[in-house]
Amino acid sequence: MARIYLDKNAYINNLECIAKKVGDKERVILVLKDNAYGHGATMLAGVAKDIGFKFCAVKNEYEADQLEPFFDKILILSHIPEGNESQRYIYATNCLKALRDIKDGTRVHLAVDTLMHRNGIQMSELDEAFEIIKAKNLVLEGAFTHHRGADELSAEYFVQDQNFKSIKSKILKIASELGFNKLDFHSRASAAFERAFDFDDELVRVGIAQLGYAQFDATLGLKPVLSLWAKKVSSRVLKAGQGVGYGGKFVADSDMNIATYDLGYGDGLLRYNGVGRLCLASNEPLLGRMSMDSFSSKDTGEWVCVFDDARVWAKFFNTIEYEILVKLSPFIKREWR
Amino acid sequence: MARIYLDKNAYINNLECIAKKVGDKERVILVLKDNAYGHGATMLAGVAKDIGFKFCAVKNEYEADQLEPFFDKILILSHIPEGNESQRYIYATNCLKALRDIKDGTRVHLAVDTLMHRNGIQMSELDEAFEIIKAKNLVLEGAFTHHRGADELSAEYFVQDQNFKSIKSKILKIASELGFNKLDFHSRASAAFERAFDFDDELVRVGIAQLGYAQFDATLGLKPVLSLWAKKVSSRVLKAGQGVGYGGKFVADSDMNIATYDLGYGDGLLRYNGVGRLCLASNEPLLGRMSMDSFSSKDTGEWVCVFDDARVWAKFFNTIEYEILVKLSPFIKREWR
Repeated sequence: MARIYLDKNAYINNLECIAKKVGDKERVILVLKDNAYGHGATMLAGVAKDIGFKFCAVKNEYEADQLEPFFDKILILSHIPEGNESQRYIYATNCLKALRDIKDGTRVHLAVDTLMHRNGIQMSELDEAFEIIKAKNLVLEGAFTHHRGADELSAEYFVQDQNFKSIKSKILKIASELGFNKLDFHSRASAAFERAFDFDDELVRVGIAQLGYAQFDATLGLKPVLSLWAKKVSSRVLKAGQGVGYGGKFVADSDMNIATYDLGYGDGLLRYNGVGRLCLASNEPLLGRMSMDSFSSKDTGEWVCVFDDARVWAKFFNTIEYEILVKLSPFIKREWR
Repeated sequence: MARIYLDKNAYINNLECIAKKVGDKERVILVLKDNAYGHGATMLAGVAKDIGFKFCAVKNEYEADQLEPFFDKILILSHIPEGNESQRYIYATNCLKALRDIKDGTRVHLAVDTLMHRNGIQMSELDEAFEIIKAKNLVLEGAFTHHRGADELSAEYFVQDQNFKSIKSKILKIASELGFNKLDFHSRASAAFERAFDFDDELVRVGIAQLGYAQFDATLGLKPVLSLWAKKVSSRVLKAGQGVGYGGKFVADSDMNIATYDLGYGDGLLRYNGVGRLCLASNEPLLGRMSMDSFSSKDTGEWVCVFDDARVWAKFFNTIEYEILVKLSPFIKREWR
């Protein structure tokens, strides 16, 4: 059966590099949502806990329940309040309605909109937000925003930084009147974290960087953690003139030894339709259309490394490495090595 | 939280249509691999069992274990033998090596290659295959092949049919000498099943057709079973000139009420990068780039139907409906309705 190997040295290296840049492990929120971007959240969590990280962020309560044994604090980013929230977690509140619907006394981080216009309340809604917080005895523990283009070199990054500074100072003012004196602010996710030289927020949120994918700063020394391996299902000689797979899209020029390996688009890989040259880590190309549960290539042994750098597949499919990684099926067995 | 709704009437309708065409429920292998192409295998299995289907096919032993309570017979299609196979299942043997590696006495269906050159033994390997079967006391219960282009109108379909007839007659001859007198042959998966007027094989394998996606025969009356629904996370007014999401790819011409809904490419959707017009079931377009956990669109209420026909998304992404369906995260809650 196919395997995902996680490189423990690489992961620890990345965590230490990140902690060194920000100065303190306790200032880092490790973003482990979506099964840690497909890597395997509980496996990473165990290592992160062992070396002193205490705070993570996830998508929903299901993910939070999985990671509760590993962290002191868990921030849930995409929860839709229904009035039965847990005291064990901190909930991002993404609009005024969320504040209204959430259970009285719940611990919250206020999401604020600084340009992305996806989630978060506006500066103009702050007074109303605090009225609700006060009326419902919500425990405000922090506030945050998300950059819409920190990975692109444009002025927007600085505009959002400035917008966050303004909203932060207003929040601090109102909050202190209400007795919230210790708030955790965070605006820097991986790309913005890499771009920063100093950190005026209490916390940073680090997702893809911990997994080894730097967007800007190669000097950080981050290393990809995940490699994906497929196992041989069968092999044969593909004779000159024969085609392989659906539609026989690849036709052999001369007799060649080919094999079928046990990963396909049903395992989360994007579906290669047999057009263009998409290569395995060995630089051997996939041959013909990918099936739901398998692909074909030259027979290079019992195991092949499909990729150890998701950017190769991201480039081929004109997408981002996040998509290549996050779609990897949770049913593929993960192992440290 | 997002939901997948499964239409029980549609599923029963499809199963009954299929059974009617082939004449007998016991001649149908329901292909429920890859979580039933993303639909939710155990849910479908319960309904199929209740109305009399007894045989299913899956990818691996993990899937077989899930479905064992529902079926008398389970064929595992992509197992890589390691010598510890179970007597409870039937294993497809995809090459001579698989026959050599599998545990003595295991129940097998011989995969034969009739043109696709992906899995299966060749006609020329049949004598050797039977020597191994005999030496290892394997229990040969059937043989099958897979069409490489049954969904395309070409002569290949007929070539493969003819190749299978030849190999079948050779198998029958050798098998009867060895005392295997009751063999189940199957070569028709959904598209080939639709194209057929009579069924000379003992069994047919039906995957995507049971889920409502006809490739050829609209008169069968198949109906899509799955619809995908997202729930609102937050909403706001996007003012004229403002952009939404990563890179602000969609910019409003005039003030509009938009919302963020709780499905993204981390839930298995293919990532919409904000270019071109990709529509929800309501015909409202997605606005701006999809995030890992959400997308934005016009605010049309608490719930939106993302699709009730996967072909809409398949067409936009230049792929096949199988890919759109099979990638849907197993963590999205499935419900009958």
